[in-house]
Amino acid sequence: MEANRMPNKEFTLPRGIRDIEPDEMVKRNWVYERIRDVFRRYAFQEMEPATLEELRTLEAKSGPSIKDEIYWFNDKAGRSIGLRFDLTVGMARMVAGRSDLPEPIKLASIAGSWRYDEPQYGRYRYFSQWDAEIFGSNDPTADAEAIALSMDILDNVGLSEFEVRISNRKVIQAFVESLGLRSQERVEAVFRIVDKSRKIPREAVRTELRSEGLEDAVIDSVVEFTSIQGTPDEVLGKVSEVQTRGEEAKLGYRQLIQLAEALKGFNKLDRCLFDMSVVRGIGYYDGIVFEAFDKGGEEVGAILGGGRYDKLCGIYGKRNIPATGVAGGIERLLISLEKAKVFPRLSTVGTVFVVAVNNEVRQKTLSIATKLRSLRIPSDVDVKGKSLAKQLEYADSLDIPYALIVGPQEVKSGRFKLRDMKKRTEESLTLEQAINRLSCISPE
Amino acid sequence: MEANRMPNKEFTLPRGIRDIEPDEMVKRNWVYERIRDVFRRYAFQEMEPATLEELRTLEAKSGPSIKDEIYWFNDKAGRSIGLRFDLTVGMARMVAGRSDLPEPIKLASIAGSWRYDEPQYGRYRYFSQWDAEIFGSNDPTADAEAIALSMDILDNVGLSEFEVRISNRKVIQAFVESLGLRSQERVEAVFRIVDKSRKIPREAVRTELRSEGLEDAVIDSVVEFTSIQGTPDEVLGKVSEVQTRGEEAKLGYRQLIQLAEALKGFNKLDRCLFDMSVVRGIGYYDGIVFEAFDKGGEEVGAILGGGRYDKLCGIYGKRNIPATGVAGGIERLLISLEKAKVFPRLSTVGTVFVVAVNNEVRQKTLSIATKLRSLRIPSDVDVKGKSLAKQLEYADSLDIPYALIVGPQEVKSGRFKLRDMKKRTEESLTLEQAINRLSCISPE
Repeated sequence: MEANRMPNKEFTLPRGIRDIEPDEMVKRNWVYERIRDVFRRYAFQEMEPATLEELRTLEAKSGPSIKDEIYWFNDKAGRSIGLRFDLTVGMARMVAGRSDLPEPIKLASIAGSWRYDEPQYGRYRYFSQWDAEIFGSNDPTADAEAIALSMDILDNVGLSEFEVRISNRKVIQAFVESLGLRSQERVEAVFRIVDKSRKIPREAVRTELRSEGLEDAVIDSVVEFTSIQGTPDEVLGKVSEVQTRGEEAKLGYRQLIQLAEALKGFNKLDRCLFDMSVVRGIGYYDGIVFEAFDKGGEEVGAILGGGRYDKLCGIYGKRNIPATGVAGGIERLLISLEKAKVFPRLSTVGTVFVVAVNNEVRQKTLSIATKLRSLRIPSDVDVKGKSLAKQLEYADSLDIPYALIVGPQEVKSGRFKLRDMKKRTEESLTLEQAINRLSCISPE
Repeated sequence: MEANRMPNKEFTLPRGIRDIEPDEMVKRNWVYERIRDVFRRYAFQEMEPATLEELRTLEAKSGPSIKDEIYWFNDKAGRSIGLRFDLTVGMARMVAGRSDLPEPIKLASIAGSWRYDEPQYGRYRYFSQWDAEIFGSNDPTADAEAIALSMDILDNVGLSEFEVRISNRKVIQAFVESLGLRSQERVEAVFRIVDKSRKIPREAVRTELRSEGLEDAVIDSVVEFTSIQGTPDEVLGKVSEVQTRGEEAKLGYRQLIQLAEALKGFNKLDRCLFDMSVVRGIGYYDGIVFEAFDKGGEEVGAILGGGRYDKLCGIYGKRNIPATGVAGGIERLLISLEKAKVFPRLSTVGTVFVVAVNNEVRQKTLSIATKLRSLRIPSDVDVKGKSLAKQLEYADSLDIPYALIVGPQEVKSGRFKLRDMKKRTEESLTLEQAINRLSCISPE
């Protein structure tokens, strides 16, 4: 290393923005591949929507106030451009512009998005999501397929202790309206409070409803109705007693019955709950909605969520396309998987370091590393001209499990020492034997 | 589909920005996995540097004029933020801030970056690169490892018809200075012209050099020297005759000799050329530089390029860390791979569509699809309530190769028709037999 130059300013990252370092990256790649495996099984086509959108495209989904929550700017041509804040907008905008695609259109994506909000535990200003959407079917079977896919994704990443909570906004909306709350603003205000009811005590829910101007009797009804939860059969029974009046309520109720049938077909009904407190905060949902929770880590919130939004595509294109889908945050999923200790041994470094005893054999170590690499054995070799001791120290500091010692004597005899860096033991092996040994222990 | 709503404005994408659609995505995923395979074999640790950087971090590498070529903006807290324009800046900034990492630090990444320049064939304002860097070694063996990795990546994606052209800026710079061009600005102006010499006729090179104020004798020397190319042995001989005076020239020459030895160790020397016209346009390179070209598609330019930049990390941190590395554009690589027809059969859709003959068996089709999916057979099933004919039409329009026909009769008998959608043939099989058949033909 050369001498210090003049002292430097610190080069820090913008707030809420970070590098994904190797230890996390290897876990991400493992998780991504497991999620993709399920996308493929379910015949969802993977794509990636544009990273940048015209601001009005983003506003069309979420209203002009979205400007305060995202990164946006005027480009050099004077157009207002925003960084995507989720993957659904881009997918819906793409599908709405493509009249050539036969419906249903099943798309999936795993990628990053940006939001300018307060960073907190497990939440960053740049974050990643997996997302799967079905465009072009208003049949609850499509919602069931999105739920079934979600559950298989959680199973496939090794998270078996989860629960899926399902509801239908049509039913809850009809119930709330039947209590006399007619305007969409008031209904959504109630939804936002109900949405918090898994996170805050019931008394706090009542207080918040009261501050929305609801009378005690109405509050009692809302709290009672949104407390209905249980197996689909139980809940369908209770909801039927409370409320199936009105066209929208009837439609919503019928959708839940059809959903339960389809979930049974997908062999997923046993692990689903119906829960009338599930409304999903976001305004664009308008039918079946659902969330899944990791039973060991509910404090990070839902690990995935989704539902039906039949009106969004109509904003972007000339035809209306009903849609349903699901998305999950990768950062939260990683937290849950870390807690559940489900990751296999994932190494970011070589299986073996090919050590040069002296300069005479350096070229030989490169050709041995080349041989090992051609056989897909992750191999490291000195590219810095280090001494024997420094090479071993380096291999040790990176937790490389094996060192293959190459000296003039070894080259002559064709027998090399394979050192187990943890056990501090050595074996004398031909290159062929060492390769066999290393092939067995290399990950994947 | 519902009736049209009011006519909508077109929601277009910003110029140079696009969606990555399923047909391309499946190829990308295949290429990414092949590149990662080589990263792993070479024990490079994959990471992803931050998408957003403080503007001054980006300017520190490329000067204040970079503002004109990138996306940048002031965030809500008044800080100037830029979208990364490559992966090297972030890696160097990260490494410079981490004194705990043992050297050499071998990092790799595959990710997107943004540049606000004119879109052209194979170039977009959002584009992806693979990138591999070695921080902490000034030994030419490190440069050789970056070159060897590059060549194995090209081989591993199936592009065997390529050539790698290598040079050392120290040698060329010393030669140009020996002709009387002393200022770094004039040397770099000459470099920029030389850099174009693979793309424009030799006479145009002479004209441009003349417009830089060079005399004809000097131009002759520059053109002659930068025309030296051939096997490493040939070129080292010729360069030695022309110029090995001066400390930097001697160092650069010695580095090329050591590089050739290391490339021989990596078993890569046969496929490398030394070429004194290779300078790489970018200012921060200061030693060995190289480029690779697809022999069938040189018009898209280099498919990868790299070299040594020993001073960049010193800008970002308190210590100097020598560095060398390589990056390649994914979009250009995809163009080359498409031309070379190397992609295997990559399907974006299901292997089979489980068809419901009528509503009575719909739940049964879901459970059969579930069974197939659990066995990793990519399977599609109707989630839209389509008729038998419409389901087959849909499967056909998506090029799904097989349909499994499920009707009440089939459920009763336990024998199902498996239809080959291309050949228009059918076989009557038990579910077990159909599964065996479909398992064999599912991709990967």
